[in-house]
Amino acid sequence: MWNDGRLCHGGDYNPEQWSAATWREDVELMRRARVTLVTVGVFAWSRLEPAPGRYDFGWLDEVLDLLHDGGVRVALATPTASPPPWFSLAHPDALPVTAEGVRLHHGSRDTYCAAAPAYRAAARGIAATLAARYAHHPAVALWRVHNEYGTSCHCPHTEAAFRRWLIDRYGDLDALNAAWATSFWSQHYTDWAYVSTPRATQYLGNPGQLLDFRRFWSDTLLAAYVEQRDLLRTANPALPVTTNYVLGDWVPVDHARWAAEVDLVAVDHYPSAVDGGAEEQTALAADLARGWARHGRRQADPATRPPADGPATWLLMESAASQIHTTGRSHTKEPGRMARHSLSHVARGSRGAMFFQWRAPAGGAERFHCALVPHTGPDSRVFRESVHLGAALDRLAEVTAGEVVAEIALARDAASDWALRHPGMPSDQLDGPAELAAAHRALWRAGYGCDVVVPGDPLDRYRLLVLPALYLAGDDTVDWVRGYVEAGGHLLVSYLSGIADPYARVHLGGYPGAYRDLLGLRVEEFHPLAADEQVLLSGGGTGRIWSETVRLRGAEPVCGYVGGVLDGLPAVTRHRVGAGTAWYLSTRPDDGTYRRLVTEAARTAGVQPVCPDAPPGVEAVRRAHPGASWLFLLNHTDRPQRVRAAGVDLLTGVPTAGEVALPAGGVAVIREESR
Amino acid sequence: MWNDGRLCHGGDYNPEQWSAATWREDVELMRRARVTLVTVGVFAWSRLEPAPGRYDFGWLDEVLDLLHDGGVRVALATPTASPPPWFSLAHPDALPVTAEGVRLHHGSRDTYCAAAPAYRAAARGIAATLAARYAHHPAVALWRVHNEYGTSCHCPHTEAAFRRWLIDRYGDLDALNAAWATSFWSQHYTDWAYVSTPRATQYLGNPGQLLDFRRFWSDTLLAAYVEQRDLLRTANPALPVTTNYVLGDWVPVDHARWAAEVDLVAVDHYPSAVDGGAEEQTALAADLARGWARHGRRQADPATRPPADGPATWLLMESAASQIHTTGRSHTKEPGRMARHSLSHVARGSRGAMFFQWRAPAGGAERFHCALVPHTGPDSRVFRESVHLGAALDRLAEVTAGEVVAEIALARDAASDWALRHPGMPSDQLDGPAELAAAHRALWRAGYGCDVVVPGDPLDRYRLLVLPALYLAGDDTVDWVRGYVEAGGHLLVSYLSGIADPYARVHLGGYPGAYRDLLGLRVEEFHPLAADEQVLLSGGGTGRIWSETVRLRGAEPVCGYVGGVLDGLPAVTRHRVGAGTAWYLSTRPDDGTYRRLVTEAARTAGVQPVCPDAPPGVEAVRRAHPGASWLFLLNHTDRPQRVRAAGVDLLTGVPTAGEVALPAGGVAVIREESR
Amino acid sequence: MWNDGRLCHGGDYNPEQWSAATWREDVELMRRARVTLVTVGVFAWSRLEPAPGRYDFGWLDEVLDLLHDGGVRVALATPTASPPPWFSLAHPDALPVTAEGVRLHHGSRDTYCAAAPAYRAAARGIAATLAARYAHHPAVALWRVHNEYGTSCHCPHTEAAFRRWLIDRYGDLDALNAAWATSFWSQHYTDWAYVSTPRATQYLGNPGQLLDFRRFWSDTLLAAYVEQRDLLRTANPALPVTTNYVLGDWVPVDHARWAAEVDLVAVDHYPSAVDGGAEEQTALAADLARGWARHGRRQADPATRPPADGPATWLLMESAASQIHTTGRSHTKEPGRMARHSLSHVARGSRGAMFFQWRAPAGGAERFHCALVPHTGPDSRVFRESVHLGAALDRLAEVTAGEVVAEIALARDAASDWALRHPGMPSDQLDGPAELAAAHRALWRAGYGCDVVVPGDPLDRYRLLVLPALYLAGDDTVDWVRGYVEAGGHLLVSYLSGIADPYARVHLGGYPGAYRDLLGLRVEEFHPLAADEQVLLSGGGTGRIWSETVRLRGAEPVCGYVGGVLDGLPAVTRHRVGAGTAWYLSTRPDDGTYRRLVTEAARTAGVQPVCPDAPPGVEAVRRAHPGASWLFLLNHTDRPQRVRAAGVDLLTGVPTAGEVALPAGGVAVIREESR
Repeated sequence: MWNDGRLCHGGDYNPEQWSAATWREDVELMRRARVTLVTVGVFAWSRLEPAPGRYDFGWLDEVLDLLHDGGVRVALATPTASPPPWFSLAHPDALPVTAEGVRLHHGSRDTYCAAAPAYRAAARGIAATLAARYAHHPAVALWRVHNEYGTSCHCPHTEAAFRRWLIDRYGDLDALNAAWATSFWSQHYTDWAYVSTPRATQYLGNPGQLLDFRRFWSDTLLAAYVEQRDLLRTANPALPVTTNYVLGDWVPVDHARWAAEVDLVAVDHYPSAVDGGAEEQTALAADLARGWARHGRRQADPATRPPADGPATWLLMESAASQIHTTGRSHTKEPGRMARHSLSHVARGSRGAMFFQWRAPAGGAERFHCALVPHTGPDSRVFRESVHLGAALDRLAEVTAGEVVAEIALARDAASDWALRHPGMPSDQLDGPAELAAAHRALWRAGYGCDVVVPGDPLDRYRLLVLPALYLAGDDTVDWVRGYVEAGGHLLVSYLSGIADPYARVHLGGYPGAYRDLLGLRVEEFHPLAADEQVLLSGGGTGRIWSETVRLRGAEPVCGYVGGVLDGLPAVTRHRVGAGTAWYLSTRPDDGTYRRLVTEAARTAGVQPVCPDAPPGVEAVRRAHPGASWLFLLNHTDRPQRVRAAGVDLLTGVPTAGEVALPAGGVAVIREESR
Repeated sequence: MWNDGRLCHGGDYNPEQWSAATWREDVELMRRARVTLVTVGVFAWSRLEPAPGRYDFGWLDEVLDLLHDGGVRVALATPTASPPPWFSLAHPDALPVTAEGVRLHHGSRDTYCAAAPAYRAAARGIAATLAARYAHHPAVALWRVHNEYGTSCHCPHTEAAFRRWLIDRYGDLDALNAAWATSFWSQHYTDWAYVSTPRATQYLGNPGQLLDFRRFWSDTLLAAYVEQRDLLRTANPALPVTTNYVLGDWVPVDHARWAAEVDLVAVDHYPSAVDGGAEEQTALAADLARGWARHGRRQADPATRPPADGPATWLLMESAASQIHTTGRSHTKEPGRMARHSLSHVARGSRGAMFFQWRAPAGGAERFHCALVPHTGPDSRVFRESVHLGAALDRLAEVTAGEVVAEIALARDAASDWALRHPGMPSDQLDGPAELAAAHRALWRAGYGCDVVVPGDPLDRYRLLVLPALYLAGDDTVDWVRGYVEAGGHLLVSYLSGIADPYARVHLGGYPGAYRDLLGLRVEEFHPLAADEQVLLSGGGTGRIWSETVRLRGAEPVCGYVGGVLDGLPAVTRHRVGAGTAWYLSTRPDDGTYRRLVTEAARTAGVQPVCPDAPPGVEAVRRAHPGASWLFLLNHTDRPQRVRAAGVDLLTGVPTAGEVALPAGGVAVIREESR
Repeated sequence: MWNDGRLCHGGDYNPEQWSAATWREDVELMRRARVTLVTVGVFAWSRLEPAPGRYDFGWLDEVLDLLHDGGVRVALATPTASPPPWFSLAHPDALPVTAEGVRLHHGSRDTYCAAAPAYRAAARGIAATLAARYAHHPAVALWRVHNEYGTSCHCPHTEAAFRRWLIDRYGDLDALNAAWATSFWSQHYTDWAYVSTPRATQYLGNPGQLLDFRRFWSDTLLAAYVEQRDLLRTANPALPVTTNYVLGDWVPVDHARWAAEVDLVAVDHYPSAVDGGAEEQTALAADLARGWARHGRRQADPATRPPADGPATWLLMESAASQIHTTGRSHTKEPGRMARHSLSHVARGSRGAMFFQWRAPAGGAERFHCALVPHTGPDSRVFRESVHLGAALDRLAEVTAGEVVAEIALARDAASDWALRHPGMPSDQLDGPAELAAAHRALWRAGYGCDVVVPGDPLDRYRLLVLPALYLAGDDTVDWVRGYVEAGGHLLVSYLSGIADPYARVHLGGYPGAYRDLLGLRVEEFHPLAADEQVLLSGGGTGRIWSETVRLRGAEPVCGYVGGVLDGLPAVTRHRVGAGTAWYLSTRPDDGTYRRLVTEAARTAGVQPVCPDAPPGVEAVRRAHPGASWLFLLNHTDRPQRVRAAGVDLLTGVPTAGEVALPAGGVAVIREESR
């Protein structure tokens, strides 16, 4: 087993930046902080292979031995996210090129094109060399391939590869012409040679081409990963392999599809909001990761990964100890916030809490990125908090037996988010991840647990399915939703769901073409709102971003628009379908209204909050397995709070007297008495 | 005659995007909406010539026949605004290049350089082929060349062509050196080979070079148009030829100069303001178009276009049925607004109201652009409104006999607007179109009709001439203005008029060099205002953007500056010159003050509003010919309004009882009793 | 002597833009304005050498003779800041290239790469030709090399030169790898050939590389200057040589290091703030210039420049007569402001007040830049004010004997400012020049004079040393500060000082690594503030931009943070060290608080304001030499002010009766009675 049964604590460790004396101090400090796992070698290529074919493994041998002696396991990284200077100089054709034709140069990280043959060969080379040397080193518990796959490129290698990928996908040009709607603007192709990547052009680009270019990159990066994984797996089939996901609108990666190819879903998470938003982002990221892990387990090839029992496993591979990177500056996390973020991940299924990074460097581009051992050294609040966190994680190992309990599913699809960002949409405020976050926030504030699912995933455990701006819908997705509702499921659909097919072509005849029958309505017109505009809703709420002319075809209004051109027309509707209800939101409600609406939908569906009496600002997450359950209570407020709960707080070992007293910013993890 | 005597209704029609079954439905729906004219083939090159020299005309034959059978006339387009993929691949040197040297690629539209010989040859080729096949097709009533000429480029072909154009213009380098003031910053040329396009450079560019580059592109695009026109005209001299103008600061086209070369001025108009601004922009665009049509008729070569009687003819070739494209989103036009915009154009002389586009496509870059038949289909508000508009247009054919009545002229000159946008101006808020719009808005709100004229146009019908930031003035323009005033005309000049010569070199000795004697003053210093700054004016108004030290030399103050460094000095002046008055505005007055000032100037000049008792928000436009007149009344408010008028409302056939009752947002067109 | 003992008045004169008749008018107008010195030929290369090797000196001969006859001295410029068109066409490889690889083109100015051999050869060529012809012309008093050195480039010539410079600097790659911390992100170099300029890259660049690239450009531009200087000096060792400094964040020039190579520090100064900020910027720029002049005199090679006695000499070489160029527009200077700005420079040591430019051109990129003779001509406020200024300067010649009196020193270091602008800093609001300006403003408003010093300069005349965000500190700087304090000096250090070493690597173990012992504290954590965030300070002030967790190690708190995570912790501290005090500011105080703090620090150090009873808004500067002193009083308010002072006002010749009455905006220069 790649972990030792405990929850992991640790982070990226870069011994190549430090002296051997510091290595020894590091192992001692890791022991104090109960570090169980460190990632080594992520950006060490230029130190491992300082010149082509010349290797220097001495320092790594020594470090791995030291760590092993100190009881610290190693996730050994392949260093392919940052080729050495010599590689870039020898292979300028493998440097990435922007859509404008600018060739990017060495001097940062990720300066390669993953479609360039020379890069792929070099990456396989160093991976195989590491595999040969370390696949059976006792310290190595896990392989971490690359770092945060997420680059794209427009070089000639890419163009050729994109064309091959399209030929695979479409077979003939008629299919591509239809999918990309090339009759518009005279873009009809009559030879594959005419097809290129979506380079900088005069005006709006082709949506089908833009969407397929993202899909192509997801597949191409995945292929780069799989090549390395297979080499590593061959060297020692017992060692699991993963790569750490990076989240962000710019990343051309469909993480759900990748989940079947990793032995462990590993996620880097850096919230960007300072206030409560950081906690909401943390909860959503963890729910996404758990969803990918489950999805991957179902999709994985049983030949290489035997079906597993128990909760789906994933790992928070990187997070920031003491900073929130937000626009324009790093916000310093308040005391206790690191632990609260970490335990929010653990509550949602992470096998631990890992950080970038162990020790803050004196130089380099990220010299001011935070670390468990900051510039100030171990005599610091931050290191002391990491020691406390290590101790806390140590006490919580048993929770890994529990699965997170949720009866609500949020559907998410990477391609929908990509398509909503295309030029030529009716509004430039359309933002799939923000729609997902708004729905998730509404549930989170209302106290409901939820899973994030991928269209096609089994839905039998859920009573309510939410589609937040799930823009694309092919027949399979429509069938999946319809089947769920017809089986008695409750459904909540937000505007912009089901508008287009998988090629981003609009379903004609009234929006949302994919779901209008199910919803009992037809949307006749869109009324996108200005950035600073609000519409009033009957019952007191407001809507932003979007509004619509909704014509009822069986649905009943829940609330309506007040004033303006839509005055008196329905804004939110519900439609009884068999035993279930299909709700529709034609605008983005304000947070309070959204919360009331999901509460009403959940109540109708028979779903309860995790901890109905938890006060506002106290997050409750329950993990359970037959015969046991654990309740995580996270107090995000700056005041003490009390919550009714019966059991033992694992962090203190103290039984509750029916009520848990949470200090300001504090956390409790209750092993619950027979619920 | 290209139209059938009725006002046109219709739009761009793209049968290449639809099945043959849809074609038949389209013709039926066109019949319901009384569509008279559709533009076909605009972006069909890749479907008409799928490979070099291989043509596919079958579908177009069938569509033209269907339309002809359905009684719909066709404006047949040459598809040269979007070359097929095969063209770009075969001629990469014909792809456009930005000032920074970025080669733009296929994937949108307009991805060609109009100075590239290969592009010009291919464009002539497809135009000649279409002419040979369709010049005598009974459905074809009009040729529409290309679409919205407006591209520029910095490729080597462009550089060579620019140099040839400069040699034609200047003859010798001394003249160019003087015009461009190359003594500044060591830019003196001693060989034509040194002269290039204004590529990206280290710091501020040369104003003369920038201005001539715009002029070069206007002439180059015009030559591309004329080539095609001549081919089409040769194939059938009876068919008129035009191209649709696109408006916008970025367009390097002097539309007034082009007007002599088109058989019909055709304008695409898309307002960008949401509130009343859309109506003001519509009125201005229509006045501009009418001015171009008149100007062109006077300038046209009598050998190819015989002098015409009656009102100058122009056509609104494209507009948006149900959207206003504004920053960040599409605003949905309120019920009735499509008709009101359309009839505002017709009131000002358009031969009808055409739209982009007939039917909204499922895919392509503009999949969410609105259409007469929207995604929802014909069972929709938008299609119903287009049916009503078709009926209304049908009833209004007689108004085409009337000419718009105006006694006020606004002068506009494309090159002045270009020069005001150059780097190195005293303020980055200088904006010629915005100055024109501000003056036009003042007149529009005060209820006056006006024409837009080009310097040099006859002025005998006008009592008041307005120069809004007419920055450039050569001797001919100065003589034109002076002659008008000396003949008793009244003149209103705004700041930034007459500052520079046609090469953008400042007239020395006191601003505005071209007009200071006529205005009876000398401006000693400019005082540009900060973006959020206002100056107070005596009498209660305010000024923005600009202020000046005005020294009187015969003029009298109308109002003065209050406070600040200009306290007590004149802000607005008037100067009696013979029988006329020359007014000067040294700042941009607020809208109310501007309206009062133009009202005072108009009253002094003896000009009356179109409909003196029309309430605010009700626009009145009169068309007249000897013996008849028609009064358009457009209620832009959201309340019913009443206006005194005697005659018959053509839209309802009901005689007024001395007063017209306009519903909120409604329109009436009164055939007036003997005025 | 390059001047005639008087204070200089004049500016850039471009006779190549004007006719010979205008030259004669110019000399007459210069006589009226008592112009003593004009710079000729700055951008005249294309007129002096219209084709390679073909020269036209006739016009320059005539102009120099005319000026000499008119009693006007000439600073003759080498025109190398703007090569002619023929040069760029012949040497496209000498055009500059951006980090993105965009080759910039001719058409502005400064379109060369100063590392390109062809450019350097051509520059030497025209300089040598000018030297041969004019080095002994009686009109020529001074050589002005080039104009505002400040370009950079990424072309292959640059890359090669950068590599050579790095080899010189580091000797071996181990040193470079250590300095640049290349262990981070796999950037370890094993061959010099791999090292390039910091081109556009995928993500954050390397801070060491970015910093050295700035240093390289400073040295490269200096070498270009020195080449020309040596040629000119050889032609006539008696003529002094200089180049005019341009100030700005973007300029890769360490002006302090250059000061040893110029015979006269010459500065162009254009404030960018409109309100009082223009006066504060003027005072700071002049203090900077004086500091460079002193620093340069100490560093200069005694072989070429013998040690001088008396006040350090510098010259305001360019300023704007009537405009303040601020964001988006030119603000027109109010009456009297030109003189006040000029005399603020003279008060601080400038040998006069020079302007860009003498006469405003009709054309060219800077056609609206102001001038002593504006577009309007000499019958103008601006020319009249320049006549008055000429007369005033004439009366003030005696003040050049006095040295500015200051007991406070502000330390500034160009590289620190560069490093604070690197990507990856904890906040994007970190701005070295703004920190310097904030500290200087606090002193200026409190009425204290100050000098700006370069780390290493002698400090024996100062009682208080201020380090405003002096980010970098090597051992020598630390020793310099420590030695000063140990000798009894008082010290005030602001946040971000002493954080990193000269390679921008963080000093570990607690911030600020360089000074924590001296300050008696250890900063454990940074808390950068959001752009709109403030922290409250005990005592009523506020802090912006930054805050810190300060742990006292001997220092005592002066004021503390109120509220938030730092509530109750120290914000400002002081530490007694021997006879001195070391103050620390962990945030940027608001202006009032900053002023109170520097006043307290100055008082503790025993420093008095220049003129303790001067009212707010009246600036006082004193120049003195043994036995005499002159007090400049500048009334920046719009009301009359009175100041106690005894002596004779040199501008009026009137003795004060113990009190000077300053009109609104007025200036007095008092030759003081025995102080």
